[in-house]
Amino acid sequence: MDQIDAFWRAANYLSVGQIYLLDNPLLTEPLRPEHVKPRLLGHWGTTPGLNFCFAHLNRLIKEHDQDMIYVVGPGHGGPAAVALSWLEGSYSEKYPNVSRDAEGMRRLFRQFSFPGGIPSHVAPETPGSINEGGELGYSLAHAFGAAFDNPDLMVACVIGDGEAETGPLAASWHSNKLLNRRRDGVVLPILHLNGYKIANPTILARIPLEELIKLMEGYGYRPHLVGPDHLEMATTLDQAHSEIAAYKAGKADRLPMIILRTPKGWTGPREVDGLPVEGTWRSHQVPLTDVRNRPDRLAQLEEWMRSYRPEELFDADGRPVPEILRSVPVGPLRMSANPHANGGELLQPLRLPDFRSYAVEVKAPAVQSTEPTRALGGLLRDVIAANRSIFRLMGPDETASNRLSDVFSVTDRAWDAAIEPTDEHLAPGGQVMEVLSEHLCQGWLEGYLLTGRHGLFNCYEAFIHIVDSMFNQHAKWLESSRKIPWRLPVASLNYLLSSHVWRQDHNGFSHQDPGFLDVVVNKKAEVVRVYLPPDANTLLSVGDHCLRSRDYVNVIVAGKQPVLDLFTMDEAIAHCTRGLGILPWASTDAGTDPDVVLACAGDVPTLETLAAAALLREYLPQLRVRVVNVVDLMRLQPHSEHPHGMSDAEFDTLFTADRPVVFNFHGYPSLIHQLTYRRNGHPNLHVRGYKEEGTTTTPFDMVMLNDIDRFHLVMDVIDRVPGLGSTQAHLRQHMMDSRLRARAYTREHGEDLPEISGWTWPNAFSS
Amino acid sequence: MDQIDAFWRAANYLSVGQIYLLDNPLLTEPLRPEHVKPRLLGHWGTTPGLNFCFAHLNRLIKEHDQDMIYVVGPGHGGPAAVALSWLEGSYSEKYPNVSRDAEGMRRLFRQFSFPGGIPSHVAPETPGSINEGGELGYSLAHAFGAAFDNPDLMVACVIGDGEAETGPLAASWHSNKLLNRRRDGVVLPILHLNGYKIANPTILARIPLEELIKLMEGYGYRPHLVGPDHLEMATTLDQAHSEIAAYKAGKADRLPMIILRTPKGWTGPREVDGLPVEGTWRSHQVPLTDVRNRPDRLAQLEEWMRSYRPEELFDADGRPVPEILRSVPVGPLRMSANPHANGGELLQPLRLPDFRSYAVEVKAPAVQSTEPTRALGGLLRDVIAANRSIFRLMGPDETASNRLSDVFSVTDRAWDAAIEPTDEHLAPGGQVMEVLSEHLCQGWLEGYLLTGRHGLFNCYEAFIHIVDSMFNQHAKWLESSRKIPWRLPVASLNYLLSSHVWRQDHNGFSHQDPGFLDVVVNKKAEVVRVYLPPDANTLLSVGDHCLRSRDYVNVIVAGKQPVLDLFTMDEAIAHCTRGLGILPWASTDAGTDPDVVLACAGDVPTLETLAAAALLREYLPQLRVRVVNVVDLMRLQPHSEHPHGMSDAEFDTLFTADRPVVFNFHGYPSLIHQLTYRRNGHPNLHVRGYKEEGTTTTPFDMVMLNDIDRFHLVMDVIDRVPGLGSTQAHLRQHMMDSRLRARAYTREHGEDLPEISGWTWPNAFSS
Repeated sequence: MDQIDAFWRAANYLSVGQIYLLDNPLLTEPLRPEHVKPRLLGHWGTTPGLNFCFAHLNRLIKEHDQDMIYVVGPGHGGPAAVALSWLEGSYSEKYPNVSRDAEGMRRLFRQFSFPGGIPSHVAPETPGSINEGGELGYSLAHAFGAAFDNPDLMVACVIGDGEAETGPLAASWHSNKLLNRRRDGVVLPILHLNGYKIANPTILARIPLEELIKLMEGYGYRPHLVGPDHLEMATTLDQAHSEIAAYKAGKADRLPMIILRTPKGWTGPREVDGLPVEGTWRSHQVPLTDVRNRPDRLAQLEEWMRSYRPEELFDADGRPVPEILRSVPVGPLRMSANPHANGGELLQPLRLPDFRSYAVEVKAPAVQSTEPTRALGGLLRDVIAANRSIFRLMGPDETASNRLSDVFSVTDRAWDAAIEPTDEHLAPGGQVMEVLSEHLCQGWLEGYLLTGRHGLFNCYEAFIHIVDSMFNQHAKWLESSRKIPWRLPVASLNYLLSSHVWRQDHNGFSHQDPGFLDVVVNKKAEVVRVYLPPDANTLLSVGDHCLRSRDYVNVIVAGKQPVLDLFTMDEAIAHCTRGLGILPWASTDAGTDPDVVLACAGDVPTLETLAAAALLREYLPQLRVRVVNVVDLMRLQPHSEHPHGMSDAEFDTLFTADRPVVFNFHGYPSLIHQLTYRRNGHPNLHVRGYKEEGTTTTPFDMVMLNDIDRFHLVMDVIDRVPGLGSTQAHLRQHMMDSRLRARAYTREHGEDLPEISGWTWPNAFSS
Repeated sequence: MDQIDAFWRAANYLSVGQIYLLDNPLLTEPLRPEHVKPRLLGHWGTTPGLNFCFAHLNRLIKEHDQDMIYVVGPGHGGPAAVALSWLEGSYSEKYPNVSRDAEGMRRLFRQFSFPGGIPSHVAPETPGSINEGGELGYSLAHAFGAAFDNPDLMVACVIGDGEAETGPLAASWHSNKLLNRRRDGVVLPILHLNGYKIANPTILARIPLEELIKLMEGYGYRPHLVGPDHLEMATTLDQAHSEIAAYKAGKADRLPMIILRTPKGWTGPREVDGLPVEGTWRSHQVPLTDVRNRPDRLAQLEEWMRSYRPEELFDADGRPVPEILRSVPVGPLRMSANPHANGGELLQPLRLPDFRSYAVEVKAPAVQSTEPTRALGGLLRDVIAANRSIFRLMGPDETASNRLSDVFSVTDRAWDAAIEPTDEHLAPGGQVMEVLSEHLCQGWLEGYLLTGRHGLFNCYEAFIHIVDSMFNQHAKWLESSRKIPWRLPVASLNYLLSSHVWRQDHNGFSHQDPGFLDVVVNKKAEVVRVYLPPDANTLLSVGDHCLRSRDYVNVIVAGKQPVLDLFTMDEAIAHCTRGLGILPWASTDAGTDPDVVLACAGDVPTLETLAAAALLREYLPQLRVRVVNVVDLMRLQPHSEHPHGMSDAEFDTLFTADRPVVFNFHGYPSLIHQLTYRRNGHPNLHVRGYKEEGTTTTPFDMVMLNDIDRFHLVMDVIDRVPGLGSTQAHLRQHMMDSRLRARAYTREHGEDLPEISGWTWPNAFSS
């Protein structure tokens, strides 16, 4: 216990030092104002509890050679994670200039929350971390994601009682129903009740204790209560460890969890200016402020720091004394150096089948139809079969609905709760994870990827907005990680957004929102990729590419409804490699000098664009029309803005610099303007897209409501190509009449005109 | 019980009819294929349970004259809510063409999920509804929001076991800790376990029953278990009602909740083609498909519908028989006609103090500084005091941090859990709602607003992304509501985003994201407004305007840190009324013909722009500089796109059509391009803004990292005004040196150069 206590005191000392000190790290002389940082930043309140848990878990690791990582939910406690890593030596291994000695300690203190230094939170920069602690709520989902398919791993997850109020965390407790004792590792949740969030008590700290225990039992855990006491914590951890062993051996059904109750800001100043601080919300951030200017505060800080007895903890050179070093596990068993927390170290490439072998045969473009996601489902089936323990498919109960059900011929949905005879494709070992929570799908996948595995999240397009902020944080994690040499690349986070805005026939307005793309493109160009494959073969090509990539967020938008096959596999590969290109068979400009360009991105807009091109070919055969399809949206940006961006010369070659371009887009039109506003031809660019019109209606009525339909595109061409406005008024009127006829038929019959819903290239409008 | 059963059968019959029938609504002749819709859309699975609960709750309403509304979590069950409203007569009151007779029933059936008809989900179009059922997870938060400050109201909230897996719902159970028995109404949660979501069992239906009961007790409720049986349900509701009475009387501490277990698709087809349907996931949507083409299915549908014995339920004219009508409550006690569910009917305007009286005195622009949100806090304090039961302030534990703490001089944080001596400003009756869940803040506020009250949600800017999708759904609700004549306007949803991207000194990169604005502007222009007041007086003016408005989502971005006071109150009112304008005192173009325009939006970018203008005045006194500040971001759009949009002539007058404009923006630069790409002067517009660079650092280092600092703006001017590039190379170098000096000072001292952080108009750069 003394050894643990010494380690804990050392970590606390180093944490306080980071928040306060510029110099005099070992307090070898009395503290002077100039030793103190001018701006005092950081979060003390949660820090001693984080150090306490870590110190005790280390004993467990050493006793059992237990492979363990530490997920820090209260990630504001950055000083703790950094101090612990420094004590374990891993910090100096990653950052040799911050050595484990007095000079290194000085640098350790100075850099924290300091310009040019390190962030105040647990962050990618922090060794041993897979969970940024800024936006709260995801620690437990990350912990379970790390545990899946890691049968020997134990993930200790500290959950702050503030974080526990968030929705994602509240839902995460149920992750245990999808954890399998043989296939997966375990998670040990430690609910840290220090009683307060920023300025308020927390709910879980103020409900009756018996209620809290029932809550944890209701979530399916065996709760253990621990107070601020070394012996209690040690005994409880021993018991938890043996309960985990029993669970792993099939002798117990429930995993343990720990409710740790400590004062907030434990071991910090009891009172400041007569007001209680330790044990209250006042210790949330910096308990003693204005230290440079107030000698009494300076003295109180020194007293506080000396209360840890640094002279017993560090030798004269600032190195931790042997007693402390002895309590540190060896090499990769150190939680701050465990390779699972730097997943790139463990990353194995997927064994990928040749995606070409799933190709749809396409004898002529735009004649037959295929459900693109069903074709991808075949590829995913074999990816799953060939990568049993390193690939998971996540989705909020939509894998079958999204036509990926081929995967169920080789795997099942992970399910460790009760199974009944009428159930299909449920099993404890399944590689498909389905729960009606986009937060959990995202959180599990992030945890799974950051520990070195692969996966794909399939989701209704509209509802991926539910995890906008989680995407943001993961993208930020990747943005930061790419600058940290020791963070090795991890597999990309792949989204497949199906059941998209244009085909919500069942569900209507609430299910129609293509705006996730707008959120995505705000993140740094280095980490985001957006693909809109228009048919099955392009989806296969894009899918293969994304599964091979590293350190990106790939967003693929693809339909589950039948769409026209446009490309042979060879053509699809070429088209996806270029990212965009002219469809010569749909164009009438013979490759040069078009009168108008019809551009498109997305499967439904592409269908309408092709139909418009067919109408123009029929009615205005002299008009030179060029059809351009865009798969890789980032190609539209200037190369200066995105690595995939085209040069202006390339852009002008495809889109022209001076001819009207009618761009039919899957999402909100403004995104295309945002990407292209610097292009020469931008003043001539007219974009159609989703304009927030919709309801439960037929597919063609839906495109008409938003003016992206074939007839409206022809009207747009007439309005924009010089000369046509006056000469083709009758054709314009005919198009308008066609729309009215289509709408009238739909309103009367409840379905689309047969010639519209069954439209294909060779026979449509050919009479 | 017979009466309840008859009502239930009638509702089920009407629900099936909506999903299937075009004609022959009363089955007066044998069903023929042409009576059936060509596209079968809708969700049957949850529907009979929704009808069951409603029928039983009606008995409670009639027996106790209980004011009650019905929140339908499984909102996919649109047919239920519509059928119930039609049975109660309220549907025909709102939609006279859908009369309560045979012809009305025919129309009722036909319109459902039919082009030109009504959505398939519970939606704004549905009488009695405040909860769109498309995106799941918010029913219980909406229910509590409705109950706050409605002491006589009971909100029955059906929660699907699918929805119960979402994070927001899981967190919502704890709302009872902020509900007060005297001040507020009650919520009766009915957890409807029908066992399945789309293609999967649900977690709560498959955990041991004792675990589920503990979970509900752990959440602080008294659970009651009910099976699919009228008598059980009636008895349990009686007991729940008396428990609620005891709770209201202070004789019980816990509210009851009901766990209702029924088969999914109850009373629907048992089997289809030999596979079980009732009681399985197969009944989720349309249990019998292909009815038009398969005579056996047609016969099964007819048998199914006749199983409800419609001839006993409706008279020959299609009117509900008297027995059914007798079970319907009277007038506004009908849940489908309760005015709480059409909040505009109950809306009272806020009693607003004169916002001018909170003005900061400004003798000269840009000399003194004020914390804008603190000024707003004074106004909010008096709004709260004058509107005790119709205004709530929501926030995730940031009200004090956001400098709104003046409100605590007149109210407290709502808190019904334990209170300890060290707590401050906690009380059962508080009008401030704080919980560390943006989802709950948003959900409560939506429920509160949609039942006719007012409020404001204050939030860290970065973390408002957590509720992107909830904002989307609320905006869609408003977009739809505006087209429904009987939906009366409700108070706007007001966001105050403080602790914004530029001042995350403590928190760094994870807290830096201004992208919510990009999400917002994708919604229809009729419902979204975005304001970036640059100082205290403009914030007061904008705040007053937003609190008076109706049916909008207002987003206000304003700082909590001291910023320069720029406008007297009269000037602030004029500036905010125009939405943008020239700052003549900062400009050197004498109102005409500038060489360059410096535009800005947001407090920190405005400060840097003013400092850049001061530098230019000092170094290039001949240069005619115009400074334009934008408060109302929507003014930048063309008038054709947004009602606030300026004409091109107005735009050109302010920004010129041909001079360089350097626009310093609070958010991502692309948003300004998106709003202005059609303007004449757009090719000359150069936008600076957040480019995803940040960490824990000083305020000025942060603006430098993103190139929005004063020195960089001057460099931008030199680069863009013709002639300056060659003549002012030395000044450009001097600016670059100034940046390097500022950065070096910051890296060395950990704080900003004193002359930068203390910059004000009269003394900066004047030597």
